[in-house]
Amino acid sequence: MDAEIVNNVKGTKDYYGESLKKRNFIIKKLSDLCVKYNFEPLQTPAFEYSKLVQNVYGDEADKLIYHILNSGDFLKDCEINSGDIKKIRAEISEKCLRYDLTLPLMRFVLNNIGEIDFPLKRYQCQSVWRADRPQKGRLREFLQFDIDIVGSVSVLCENEILLFVNDFFDDISFQQYTIKINHRKVLEDLAKLIGCDGEKCTSFFILIDKKDKIGLEGVVQGLKDLDVKEENINVLQSLFALDCDNFCKIAHIKNIFKNANIDTKNIEELENFYAKYVYGKIKNVNIDLSLVRGLAYYTGLIFEVTLDNANVGSVCGGGRYDYFANKFSRKELESVGISFGIDRLYAALEDKNILQEQTYTKILFANADNNLDFNLIRLLRKRGFIVDIYYNPENNYSKKLRYADKKNFDFVISCEKEGEYMCRNMGTGETRFFTTSKNIEDEIYTFVTN
Amino acid sequence: MDAEIVNNVKGTKDYYGESLKKRNFIIKKLSDLCVKYNFEPLQTPAFEYSKLVQNVYGDEADKLIYHILNSGDFLKDCEINSGDIKKIRAEISEKCLRYDLTLPLMRFVLNNIGEIDFPLKRYQCQSVWRADRPQKGRLREFLQFDIDIVGSVSVLCENEILLFVNDFFDDISFQQYTIKINHRKVLEDLAKLIGCDGEKCTSFFILIDKKDKIGLEGVVQGLKDLDVKEENINVLQSLFALDCDNFCKIAHIKNIFKNANIDTKNIEELENFYAKYVYGKIKNVNIDLSLVRGLAYYTGLIFEVTLDNANVGSVCGGGRYDYFANKFSRKELESVGISFGIDRLYAALEDKNILQEQTYTKILFANADNNLDFNLIRLLRKRGFIVDIYYNPENNYSKKLRYADKKNFDFVISCEKEGEYMCRNMGTGETRFFTTSKNIEDEIYTFVTN
Repeated sequence: MDAEIVNNVKGTKDYYGESLKKRNFIIKKLSDLCVKYNFEPLQTPAFEYSKLVQNVYGDEADKLIYHILNSGDFLKDCEINSGDIKKIRAEISEKCLRYDLTLPLMRFVLNNIGEIDFPLKRYQCQSVWRADRPQKGRLREFLQFDIDIVGSVSVLCENEILLFVNDFFDDISFQQYTIKINHRKVLEDLAKLIGCDGEKCTSFFILIDKKDKIGLEGVVQGLKDLDVKEENINVLQSLFALDCDNFCKIAHIKNIFKNANIDTKNIEELENFYAKYVYGKIKNVNIDLSLVRGLAYYTGLIFEVTLDNANVGSVCGGGRYDYFANKFSRKELESVGISFGIDRLYAALEDKNILQEQTYTKILFANADNNLDFNLIRLLRKRGFIVDIYYNPENNYSKKLRYADKKNFDFVISCEKEGEYMCRNMGTGETRFFTTSKNIEDEIYTFVTN
Repeated sequence: MDAEIVNNVKGTKDYYGESLKKRNFIIKKLSDLCVKYNFEPLQTPAFEYSKLVQNVYGDEADKLIYHILNSGDFLKDCEINSGDIKKIRAEISEKCLRYDLTLPLMRFVLNNIGEIDFPLKRYQCQSVWRADRPQKGRLREFLQFDIDIVGSVSVLCENEILLFVNDFFDDISFQQYTIKINHRKVLEDLAKLIGCDGEKCTSFFILIDKKDKIGLEGVVQGLKDLDVKEENINVLQSLFALDCDNFCKIAHIKNIFKNANIDTKNIEELENFYAKYVYGKIKNVNIDLSLVRGLAYYTGLIFEVTLDNANVGSVCGGGRYDYFANKFSRKELESVGISFGIDRLYAALEDKNILQEQTYTKILFANADNNLDFNLIRLLRKRGFIVDIYYNPENNYSKKLRYADKKNFDFVISCEKEGEYMCRNMGTGETRFFTTSKNIEDEIYTFVTN
């Protein structure tokens, strides 16, 4: 038989036991916080119709979407020889897998728009799938946790999302992180400042977005390829290199914009937001003029969280996107959201000893089969203990103890003669005998909790 | 624009707010119980390799599997004109979506067999996808919650699973259910009894499995088509119609087998299990000789749970399957498992008022924007309240109250002049004023919890 056949699919992972418990711990902390913030849960199907999804994320992203073959005779009515791969695909596949959680949210809202009292605050934790080249830290199936506020233009929304980030990291007792913020309209002003506005603006954004990958040298070369003048490249470099507090950064940019006759409306919007909602209220915020966020749909404030000294990229990011729904509807759904990458958070935090669930005392019933008291077992489980049964009661006692030791049981209870239980503390080796009585459950409870 | 374009895919559902909370309540009760039973969590990818999956579930089930189109130029190297749809599909699609949670478990175990201390007890709650004809109560994406014990032949495993079922329904305070049990080997003996052994046995199983759909008349016609003699049909009918307690049923069957010279080994195995582990220990058990469980891989005790007076089919089912892994491996993994259908449980229980999560007091801060104290909001959230912000502080107070009423807030706090908070109990209409001080958080806490 083929050994490879029992592998999981390349680019995917199985999660089991401790690692999954830690991952679930992160999700639980986020979910509990969402409840406190009055977000409502949403789950959407793994499938969406391809005709809805296509042309929403852009050409490069479209290549990463997984398509599902139509069921049954998928070649019926298909002119498979037309040669155009996109056309053939559309004929043999009408559904594709979830690429992110934002489109399903917009689709859900538009589909139920009559029944929704805006603003809608929802959280959603589900897998997304991307046909990316598998590499370290990049999976083809990964779990996202998104929170979004839909249907409000108030900056109180942006403020809530940033508060949420602070509260989440407080809740997991982790403080070594930075919230980078920027504003898409200030970025547009920057593009104008160096002569990259109009048609060149998108190329400029794409270039800056790659900064971490290609380095400052790469960015400079890219700017030259965009015919940006040397003096403008220098201005941009000096802005990116600004090493002072956030107010100082804003003042500096405002000054440069003024001197270049660029409207200071947008930078002042950022300044006002920072002064009123962030300064002294939100921890660990750093204005980063080179922050772009790859996706095309952001329209206002954007943010991204990185962990200090962790090499996993950003662990969450988001911003305001007011026109996403316009890609497939006449409606505008003004929205702000943030997405937490659960797998990256887990990868960065798993060895830090902070992802600990409540632990329970583990008891193994290694009884001779005939004397197993299932009611006692049930009562101890109801009392909050983890209780397991040793499935080979005919084995000798030392074999049972080795098993209990290997599987981290705290206590082993056995019953060699009816009505008498021996309970062993695996840590200390202490043993105690209990006789069947009305109080045996209480007596065992007292022994194992002291 | 096309109105239909914002629909979810046919045969799938969005879950939002209260309905999702109830669904999650079921999952949480099951998960918590799994922890007490010392089951470990597992999550596997949505994809499996098609070459692993094919021929595991049988021809009919294979038609229900969703296949994923290969990424990129999927037609490269594909002789699309060969005409054989299965061959073409294998060339353009190497992956398929999860059809159940049993195969991924077996695959996971075989892939990690060196690191596992058997028995492995795992629970897994994930979606599965089946290209079924959409109909009421049957979705193309649905959530399963599976628990399995792998690597033990002990009947203590079967016993644990049945105890688990009892404990789960206790935990959700619901008692109107029946656990039907049967034994695949007793079914084989029955087949032999009426001359349906050998090649006819599978057809016999498929026929009996359809009993609920086609009715007793349909079964009788099917038996005639299988050339079963009239007298044997009568024997079978009388066995299915047996209306006495479980011991009486067993005695009756044993008697018939004896008279027909059929080995009573298997019925005695069922009898011993029932006498030792079920009678007086597991509630709501009913031996049902017509229980088959459709899937081909069961080898011993099988069980299925139906809710009394609920029209959703079985809400969970399972049994022993000792040779599943042999479909793609030389290894045998003796296993017992049960699968809970979360969507069916939810459908049957949603209106019964038992799926209630803990409720929290909901507070709306409807402050004038300028006076919003985010630290107070944070502290109240940490105290366990749901606290939300009204995003249009410029609106008048009565509009704010209407909003709070519509969205079920218990209290509305507003702050019209700095340092003074007005807190309104939405139920009683009582209002109280609080002045900013060190103790304001405690004072508000006392007011809203009394």
